Amino acid sequence: MKFTYQNPTQIIFGAGTISQLGEVVSANGKKALLVTGGGSVKRSGTFERAVSSLNAAGVSVVECSGIEPNPRLSTVVRGAEIARSEGCDVVVALGGGSTMDAAKVIAAAVFYDGDPWNMMFHVQENRKLPERALPIITVPTLAATGSEMNAGAVITDDKTTVKSFVSAKCMYPRVAIVDPELTVSVPKDQTAFGICDLITHVTESYFNGVDGTPLQDRFAEGVILTAMEWGPKAVADGRDLEARAQVQWASVVALNGWVQVGTLAAFPVHMIEHTLSAHHDIPHGAGLAVVNPAWMRFAARSNPARFAQFAERIFNISVRYPLDTEAVAEGINRFEAFLRSIGCPTRLSQVGIGDALLERYAHDTVLVAHDAEGHLPGRPSMSESDIVEVLRSVL
Amino acid sequence: MKFTYQNPTQIIFGAGTISQLGEVVSANGKKALLVTGGGSVKRSGTFERAVSSLNAAGVSVVECSGIEPNPRLSTVVRGAEIARSEGCDVVVALGGGSTMDAAKVIAAAVFYDGDPWNMMFHVQENRKLPERALPIITVPTLAATGSEMNAGAVITDDKTTVKSFVSAKCMYPRVAIVDPELTVSVPKDQTAFGICDLITHVTESYFNGVDGTPLQDRFAEGVILTAMEWGPKAVADGRDLEARAQVQWASVVALNGWVQVGTLAAFPVHMIEHTLSAHHDIPHGAGLAVVNPAWMRFAARSNPARFAQFAERIFNISVRYPLDTEAVAEGINRFEAFLRSIGCPTRLSQVGIGDALLERYAHDTVLVAHDAEGHLPGRPSMSESDIVEVLRSVL
Repeated sequence: MKFTYQNPTQIIFGAGTISQLGEVVSANGKKALLVTGGGSVKRSGTFERAVSSLNAAGVSVVECSGIEPNPRLSTVVRGAEIARSEGCDVVVALGGGSTMDAAKVIAAAVFYDGDPWNMMFHVQENRKLPERALPIITVPTLAATGSEMNAGAVITDDKTTVKSFVSAKCMYPRVAIVDPELTVSVPKDQTAFGICDLITHVTESYFNGVDGTPLQDRFAEGVILTAMEWGPKAVADGRDLEARAQVQWASVVALNGWVQVGTLAAFPVHMIEHTLSAHHDIPHGAGLAVVNPAWMRFAARSNPARFAQFAERIFNISVRYPLDTEAVAEGINRFEAFLRSIGCPTRLSQVGIGDALLERYAHDTVLVAHDAEGHLPGRPSMSESDIVEVLRSVL
Repeated sequence: MKFTYQNPTQIIFGAGTISQLGEVVSANGKKALLVTGGGSVKRSGTFERAVSSLNAAGVSVVECSGIEPNPRLSTVVRGAEIARSEGCDVVVALGGGSTMDAAKVIAAAVFYDGDPWNMMFHVQENRKLPERALPIITVPTLAATGSEMNAGAVITDDKTTVKSFVSAKCMYPRVAIVDPELTVSVPKDQTAFGICDLITHVTESYFNGVDGTPLQDRFAEGVILTAMEWGPKAVADGRDLEARAQVQWASVVALNGWVQVGTLAAFPVHMIEHTLSAHHDIPHGAGLAVVNPAWMRFAARSNPARFAQFAERIFNISVRYPLDTEAVAEGINRFEAFLRSIGCPTRLSQVGIGDALLERYAHDTVLVAHDAEGHLPGRPSMSESDIVEVLRSVL
């Protein structure tokens, strides 16, 4: 185990903490670019509360609304232009993962020399990470991506349908104000997709990480067990603030690095899903619910011991060591059944995807992330035909 | 659940990382106060490696050695005087928890107006937290206190035998270089005491925290299970680098806030032990091994459900809910047996403490931390006679 880790983001967590927004932002700037998605933050009254808090603290607000569910490069470029021309000195993200991701890249693009697409992970030649960004304050309105307390962002190039990501030190939010009250109006389906997203963040490192990280295993299991205990309550009754709080805290921890540290894990399930949502604009969490169990069945063949541990520790399935294919299959089945029970799709047809473009998805996925052999990194690494096989298994 | 959390320390973890010390320190200063304890870092060659790395990076070294196992106020004052008179601009701690704690307070005392004792938690009038400190770099040579990645320090006033603590934002280390190779020469007993110390950090928040922190519970259990799996291997064969690494990572996480965040827990077992080690200069972890199981039996009476969860999740003891006093007792017995199995004392007589001063220990403990009724905060809070009862149960 060998790693370097630092997460400088301050998190302010709890019901009602959005009232601190103005004070927090005013310590970082005087003119805020307020980045939002669709109209839900306006309908819920959250937008108005945020603006009031900012204005009361002497912070003026420039609006950048309309961030798409799968945020686009052109949107990010537009946001950076607004921030520059208006002289914004701080960026506030008020929304879900897409809004926060876009806000981070906007904050960095303000100072970036050239096309911000050159920041992205998949760029082969002349890739250049951003080194400077406007201060970023995140206020998530959905428990899902964990973007509020990490330095990552996922962006789609609308021209090429390539979805890629970037993670840079300057993109760590200064402060994340995580107020579970803001999530009580999230509809059942989005709540369920968020739960699947957060669980998938930790299953990625759990199944794709290096051996010899037993404490990280325990932390991942803790996130999954907590999400499986409290998630269904949040789905059943969106106004259950206790359930909302537990799910949201789990979503923060699932991708702020505490679970992944030292695992050196690739995120193959995310990479495959990114291609699906780039092509079809489906909710990221819904796509993960389809891909993750299918991927698990594929990966379990080469790494059964790890999946046996999952079955045993998450579902209390009794395992006969060293190898128990029945227990392994049962663990994955139970996980898939859990996703269905909270309302997630587990077949491509349920999200309107057929078999016409399977090879294209595989090709695009490998385009964004590949090893020397052209395979998608992960445990195991996957050829394009492996990816097709996995997707075909859940048509 | 409501909290604010930020831990800005960068951690560099892994065997051999001490070679990065010079480079890391030179980014923070040019003249280092190198704080060390007794002679073990010199005997093991670690001191020489550190100095070589520092000098090679152009950092000159001023030595401040002789930090005691329970570091004293007078030592801290001496260290700050050396740093000031020599014009040191960075403080490097190379040693165990005592050395790191002393180094942190030295770094803050350099700029502190007045007696550094006025920083401490128990000070009633005119307490003043430090607001500025020299950059601190920690290099732990023992897996135990977690001091390398938090802002806390415990200091004893040698004149009054009062042991108190301080935690201030400026005392977060800039960088913690955590190299498990440095711990392979730690003797069996100190290894075991460190394991007890790290486990006790998480049992404190597990048993004394507020209700409604299920993810923090899982994380605490993860730390305990990992320490119980790998700790005995590190005790059995000190050169087992894999075991040393797992125990050390667990010790970092046990008190860098990831487990305690949002629990608002008092640390009554630590407070009681601090008094014992202030009076008798016993190793902190050995004192904890005596006090913790005894405290658990006391606390379980008023909070049996939480101890039943401990029995079930840590020792796989089958629990009959809602109340199962047998399972609760069995869980605590098994925990005490584990401590004994790795060589920890579990009776006061084993660390040379008799019954002559029980009331004095209780009085001194409550002097440092008390609520409005004069009780030691915790779950439950403890009167002086409660503390005497707990200590008397393990004479």
